[in-house]
Amino acid sequence: MDAKDRDPKGVRQNDLLGFVGYNMKRAYMRIYADFTDALAELDLRQRTFSVLSLVVENPDISQSDVARTLGIERSGTVVIVDELEGRNLIRRDKVPGDRRAHALNVTTGGRDLYRRAIKRIERHENKVLDALSSDERTRLRSLLNRIHTLET
Amino acid sequence: MDAKDRDPKGVRQNDLLGFVGYNMKRAYMRIYADFTDALAELDLRQRTFSVLSLVVENPDISQSDVARTLGIERSGTVVIVDELEGRNLIRRDKVPGDRRAHALNVTTGGRDLYRRAIKRIERHENKVLDALSSDERTRLRSLLNRIHTLET
Repeated sequence: MDAKDRDPKGVRQNDLLGFVGYNMKRAYMRIYADFTDALAELDLRQRTFSVLSLVVENPDISQSDVARTLGIERSGTVVIVDELEGRNLIRRDKVPGDRRAHALNVTTGGRDLYRRAIKRIERHENKVLDALSSDERTRLRSLLNRIHTLET
Repeated sequence: MDAKDRDPKGVRQNDLLGFVGYNMKRAYMRIYADFTDALAELDLRQRTFSVLSLVVENPDISQSDVARTLGIERSGTVVIVDELEGRNLIRRDKVPGDRRAHALNVTTGGRDLYRRAIKRIERHENKVLDALSSDERTRLRSLLNRIHTLET
């Protein structure tokens, strides 16, 4: 048995550690906790940040495209867009010829907060991925990306 | 821009996909959904399975060692142990000289269900990790494991 398959107090978990899913859960929990802390000081949560990011990168994006891309409910997206709009970080612009649709765009303040968030996330990833070299990080990202894109 | 950084409808997400965390979240969500389905037919949830696994691999393990190893609250562990005991999958044995402690052990029925669960999870991982070769799966597991063990 590999020494890594026992925790410091000697609890065996060979079966669990043999599964990719269990290792991913542990790594994700570790990363997520630190990520949450990193963004909390900007009053951003994971999903709020993701929505802001899509709006920054895709001028005039619709709420339904945001929802579909992030795999979240349309109603949940509306709540987040409401919050970002209320904080004056993004705007709901009118779409000519469609009264019910909105084109989302970032405000100057939103772009500024976004830049600060990006820097914080970079520092966070440098911290939690400290054990991995730059090449290993790239490889990990690519392997993970291929899992997600399997069937979608 | 890499074609992979756009989803089929052309939504850009270069920034998000540049972070390991975002790719991990997407991959984890994908795996978790299928994992949940795979175990649901045996009436097992992720945590219930993990607790059962530790009991199978570590005869006489204590509830507190289970809690610590899985990083879950002691109270949550008690609920899961209650459930597994109620279904006659594990037993709480007495610990000589310590009236309040219990030594957890798997029953014959528990071991049988555990074997069936392992087979299901193997099939589940073969399905969701279909895009990765055997070497790539091993590499991914190892990279993920090194993130978790960073500081713990």
